[in-house]
Amino acid sequence: MTKRIAILGSTGSIGTQTLDVISHYPERFQVTALAGGYNVELLAEQVRQFRPKLVSVATRELAEQLKATLPYSPRIVYGAEGLVESAAASDADSVVTAVVGSQGLQPTLAALEAGKHIALANKETLVSAGHLVMSLAKERGLSILPVDSEHSAIFQCLNGEPRERIRRITLTASGGSFRDKTRAELDGVTVEQALKHPNWSMGAKITIDSATMANKGLEVMEAHWLYELPYDRIDVLIHPESIIHSFVEFEDSSIIAQMGLPDMRVPIQYALTYPDRLPTPVGSLNLAELGKLHFREMDQERYRMMRYAYEAGRIGGTAPTVFNAANEAAVARFLRGEISFLQIEELVERALERHAAIFNPGLEAILEADAWARGEASQS
Amino acid sequence: MTKRIAILGSTGSIGTQTLDVISHYPERFQVTALAGGYNVELLAEQVRQFRPKLVSVATRELAEQLKATLPYSPRIVYGAEGLVESAAASDADSVVTAVVGSQGLQPTLAALEAGKHIALANKETLVSAGHLVMSLAKERGLSILPVDSEHSAIFQCLNGEPRERIRRITLTASGGSFRDKTRAELDGVTVEQALKHPNWSMGAKITIDSATMANKGLEVMEAHWLYELPYDRIDVLIHPESIIHSFVEFEDSSIIAQMGLPDMRVPIQYALTYPDRLPTPVGSLNLAELGKLHFREMDQERYRMMRYAYEAGRIGGTAPTVFNAANEAAVARFLRGEISFLQIEELVERALERHAAIFNPGLEAILEADAWARGEASQS
Repeated sequence: MTKRIAILGSTGSIGTQTLDVISHYPERFQVTALAGGYNVELLAEQVRQFRPKLVSVATRELAEQLKATLPYSPRIVYGAEGLVESAAASDADSVVTAVVGSQGLQPTLAALEAGKHIALANKETLVSAGHLVMSLAKERGLSILPVDSEHSAIFQCLNGEPRERIRRITLTASGGSFRDKTRAELDGVTVEQALKHPNWSMGAKITIDSATMANKGLEVMEAHWLYELPYDRIDVLIHPESIIHSFVEFEDSSIIAQMGLPDMRVPIQYALTYPDRLPTPVGSLNLAELGKLHFREMDQERYRMMRYAYEAGRIGGTAPTVFNAANEAAVARFLRGEISFLQIEELVERALERHAAIFNPGLEAILEADAWARGEASQS
Repeated sequence: MTKRIAILGSTGSIGTQTLDVISHYPERFQVTALAGGYNVELLAEQVRQFRPKLVSVATRELAEQLKATLPYSPRIVYGAEGLVESAAASDADSVVTAVVGSQGLQPTLAALEAGKHIALANKETLVSAGHLVMSLAKERGLSILPVDSEHSAIFQCLNGEPRERIRRITLTASGGSFRDKTRAELDGVTVEQALKHPNWSMGAKITIDSATMANKGLEVMEAHWLYELPYDRIDVLIHPESIIHSFVEFEDSSIIAQMGLPDMRVPIQYALTYPDRLPTPVGSLNLAELGKLHFREMDQERYRMMRYAYEAGRIGGTAPTVFNAANEAAVARFLRGEISFLQIEELVERALERHAAIFNPGLEAILEADAWARGEASQS
């Protein structure tokens, strides 16, 4: 049976890899909608190859520009509304939400309202609105399948296992671009240095978030919602090789881990073919060749974002939204050269300190907290 | 609901650990039969604690001796027939087959004929009679749950997974007592040295088999039957720490591994509580504290038993029986100080060379090949 897929963020790193996965199984998948951003050239290429009926871009001008280059006439929409439309209005069975940042939230809710399963690659959705998203999915009987390698690992480890017997889960973290630097050595690191991730090929925002560990912080919050676990049952472990992608310890002290070469196409494909598994172009892991795997404690003083994330997660309500939005604004400023690497942490810490969290927030309160935190983190 | 359990080999290493597991959950388990061997003192203690209705010992004399020490009157049987009776004649739901060597075969078949599930800790059963045991279990709708840590690991990794998507399984091997010795250095090693296993606390026979790698060879053959995999889909990897107990690679290159501190009570308990998991007295694995895990290729020249095992397994028929029986006889001679460590391999190799395998053998042909191989390996 053909599975119909809509992809939000098709020109980004996860988006292009999702299309790569789909291109290997043309008889299994059909692309119903593609939402890109500003990279119209790449989007046009994707549209020509996968022939979706619905396409979305960032602005009206880009929509016009795209229209002119296409050999057929899909429906073309744009902006935030266009993103929501491409999530909900095509005849997709599943929506891959691979847009970066808090813009992923509304389309995900719209997709669920429209009865679509979610392959979730947007971290901020659960961080900001885990309570809304998970209860909506449960109510509608829809699945939220994780695309992120760590959450996919946990998801794979839980196959056929009794969930009430989970003792703890451990998310592994490569340690990011600066894992071998002390805290003092982080003073004055450049954008170029921060963008060199040792193991994974990813977008700019997430690569910086790996270096600050904000990324792992967001993953901890996501895991809290995805697996319905309190924060003291979610651990983080530094594992420089990124071979063990995460693991679950059960009540009997048995641990199930998921491993493999670091390649996002494995978890992406799994979210699309679950519960089945099909061949990928990814090579087999050879542990003998590798020889060793290393592990070390996550130090929350060295990686302060980790501490802020646990604190925000435990507070709950709008605190995780503020963590995320302040971080997004701060990372954007770092990438523009406006602030130093360590100032990212400072801005997030200050926003959290100044924020009075609202509990069980609706979408409006979330968006308000999000806007407020961005404003906060945009001031020096 | 109480599960009724019979234990064959209750005074051995697996047997005593099984009773340790059971003693933590007196409301869940009831011991219906205990079969020991020559250690009547320990057996009497176990009988007094667990109050089985049926008890078996090695000889008539020991049966009399045991009877005199007990405060109640269970049925006491003895010898090979007693072992079969304790496997089949109690009202057990499951039989833990923890006797060492090929004496485990007939009781296992008898237990299956009597409609009992098997928690399998006797390697030789599947090695010699995998075709008989697995088809009988399938026919009767009975489960064969592995107790061995490696096979339990594979079993746990396959939970909820599509079996037809297994690419390969990898059994890990600690490398045994002599893993840091070259082949030349094995000349003249003593029994005492061979009995010092670096990670696992086990019986003498299996500890020697770990040093020669015959144990891993038997496990490869067992895995062939348990998971219905051809030999070229079963790999062995040296992993000195014995933390990753084994793993499965699927068609998508994703690997699921089972890990934990090396303690047999985890797989033993899992075989008794499956699919549930309950707390064990075993501690949690702390990978950060451990720091590193190591892996290296299994060298079939250094560990010739590994090569002979794959060869015997691929030939099939009675060849695995000969591998196993010759090894048992040779190990017994080594433990008695009659032959050197490296002569164990030589005797197994010679027996395999001289044996003309019989294909699809019945029980009689298996026992004949077994006796023949023991005779062969008993001659210098």
